[in-house]
Amino acid sequence: MTGPLPGERMRSEIVAQPTVLASVAERRAEIARVAEVIDRRAPRFAVLAARGSSDHAALYAKYLIEVLLQLPAGLASPSTTTLYGAEPDLTGVLFVTVSQSGGSPDLVEATRAARRRGALTVAVTNTPDSPLNEVTELAVDIGAGTELAVAATKTYTASLIALYLLIDAVRGGTGEAVAEIGELAERTLAGAADPVREAVDHYRFVERVVTTGRGYSSATAAEAALKLAETSYLAARAYSGADLLHGPVAAIDAETGVLAVTSAGRGGEAMRDVVAAVRERGADVLAVGSAAADVDAGLRIEVPRTAEEVAPILEVLPLQQLALALSLARGGDPDRPRGLRKVTRTR
Amino acid sequence: MTGPLPGERMRSEIVAQPTVLASVAERRAEIARVAEVIDRRAPRFAVLAARGSSDHAALYAKYLIEVLLQLPAGLASPSTTTLYGAEPDLTGVLFVTVSQSGGSPDLVEATRAARRRGALTVAVTNTPDSPLNEVTELAVDIGAGTELAVAATKTYTASLIALYLLIDAVRGGTGEAVAEIGELAERTLAGAADPVREAVDHYRFVERVVTTGRGYSSATAAEAALKLAETSYLAARAYSGADLLHGPVAAIDAETGVLAVTSAGRGGEAMRDVVAAVRERGADVLAVGSAAADVDAGLRIEVPRTAEEVAPILEVLPLQQLALALSLARGGDPDRPRGLRKVTRTR
Repeated sequence: MTGPLPGERMRSEIVAQPTVLASVAERRAEIARVAEVIDRRAPRFAVLAARGSSDHAALYAKYLIEVLLQLPAGLASPSTTTLYGAEPDLTGVLFVTVSQSGGSPDLVEATRAARRRGALTVAVTNTPDSPLNEVTELAVDIGAGTELAVAATKTYTASLIALYLLIDAVRGGTGEAVAEIGELAERTLAGAADPVREAVDHYRFVERVVTTGRGYSSATAAEAALKLAETSYLAARAYSGADLLHGPVAAIDAETGVLAVTSAGRGGEAMRDVVAAVRERGADVLAVGSAAADVDAGLRIEVPRTAEEVAPILEVLPLQQLALALSLARGGDPDRPRGLRKVTRTR
Repeated sequence: MTGPLPGERMRSEIVAQPTVLASVAERRAEIARVAEVIDRRAPRFAVLAARGSSDHAALYAKYLIEVLLQLPAGLASPSTTTLYGAEPDLTGVLFVTVSQSGGSPDLVEATRAARRRGALTVAVTNTPDSPLNEVTELAVDIGAGTELAVAATKTYTASLIALYLLIDAVRGGTGEAVAEIGELAERTLAGAADPVREAVDHYRFVERVVTTGRGYSSATAAEAALKLAETSYLAARAYSGADLLHGPVAAIDAETGVLAVTSAGRGGEAMRDVVAAVRERGADVLAVGSAAADVDAGLRIEVPRTAEEVAPILEVLPLQQLALALSLARGGDPDRPRGLRKVTRTR
């Protein structure tokens, strides 16, 4: 009996993303109905709860809510409720829980408590009959299909687009910025194949990687670091471009691989100084995004240009490809991390 | 002319902490006057803005505000304002900016915008005449004295205790939990000397470090990872204990050094499962905190027991000592990171 090839699960879930993204975009009307309820309740601010990759999707949504809806937004610390029993008044608060499985007991408990305290609760999950959906008032199904790989890929980007469509609809948008998302994702994956191969060759023996981005792309930098950590045994760290210049830049040298997310727009523009500062320290820079050509990098992966607020949906794709290919090149199997007998995940 | 010894600045700032902490505790009444204004305004929720180490102090304050004041709290993303011009209504919001220098232009700008939009603004800084203080309505001086080392130590713990005293005073507390803090910090540093030496010997050649904590101690885990990254060229990553079990645990193996922050209380109790899970994967565990004896660790650094909500002030001290000593053992100088000609920090 032959098992699947190393990394086959992760690979097949990466390449499924154009189809998944296009299908979420088609369910725009269904998501807009949830947005209508949110709009009617006119929340005073938003709290987002999530773990792992979904926490990066939540970070993306925090930016969307603050910029597009002009509402303050924060990420929840579920343990203030689950460990310390905090029960703040959440009347008029929009509480969005992002969870692929919808089954993490602490997220379910924190969400239940939020609803009890007056919040308008929304589940954004890939598992519409999950325990989380039982406790929330509203739900958005990201519809990414079953995800088997240890490293989340298609559920991450499906969460991003679902959150974008939801928040865009609350402000009365029609999701125009993602109308062509399936085709753009296809082009992104195809266009990245060669530069990703080059990057894998380059990073074959790297020990220290720092990822960085600004604005919406902070989420991409955080997710890229997690993917590399989960698949390639790299202790990759993510810093917002602003934080990096405040001190951690001191620990960057010629042995550090820096992955800089640079998409067209305000965030990408603000990254120019960051990239210049790390280059001055001799760091090796790989720029990924639609503005990769605008920064001083040794390697570049170009991504099709979109409205800045939806760039994170595309710019993470080559970074997933890189994590997968680097793991394989280093003799690993991202689907079967070393010494892990059985994948025990909260489903 | 002989210059200072390697790491001398960082060392002298680490050992100054008992005196600094005791002196902040003595200025309790001054901090309580700021708290009185906050209490009178009865904020509906809190937003904290910070960068770098101060961001970890802000994370600690987020837990304090949610648990002790029963108010929702979130960390600001200053760039939603500074890059994208977001101007949400912040009427009735408590906006606390934590910044050693009080001079980061983006924090100053985001704080000015918050005040304009109705927030009650508070500066928590080590530089009472800073640009930040000019824009806020209220200010707390952490009074840590000039900090010269690249890696923040005394300004970090001084920020923690100042935030604790502020938030405790808002709920009508008298700062009792930190009454003996100077002496406890002294005992922590002295007691950690031998186990830190042992840990340095153990980690001399480590390449991959993960730090983890839960609840209040999540801030300590994040700060420890940053200190190790800044001083010892380690790409140390921090995970909340809850996040770690969700996937990243797959990347932990016998070559990973895990620093687990385990103080007496709910957070430390919740760490038992986390430590058991990483031990099962063969990871090497160093437990730091007043409940270090309660988890299955190969190495332990005991810290005097306090109320759980002030444990982060003490438990970070041995981790600072470890970062300093490890940097020196690996041939570095934490005061002069490789290739850095001049420390360029936003002052």
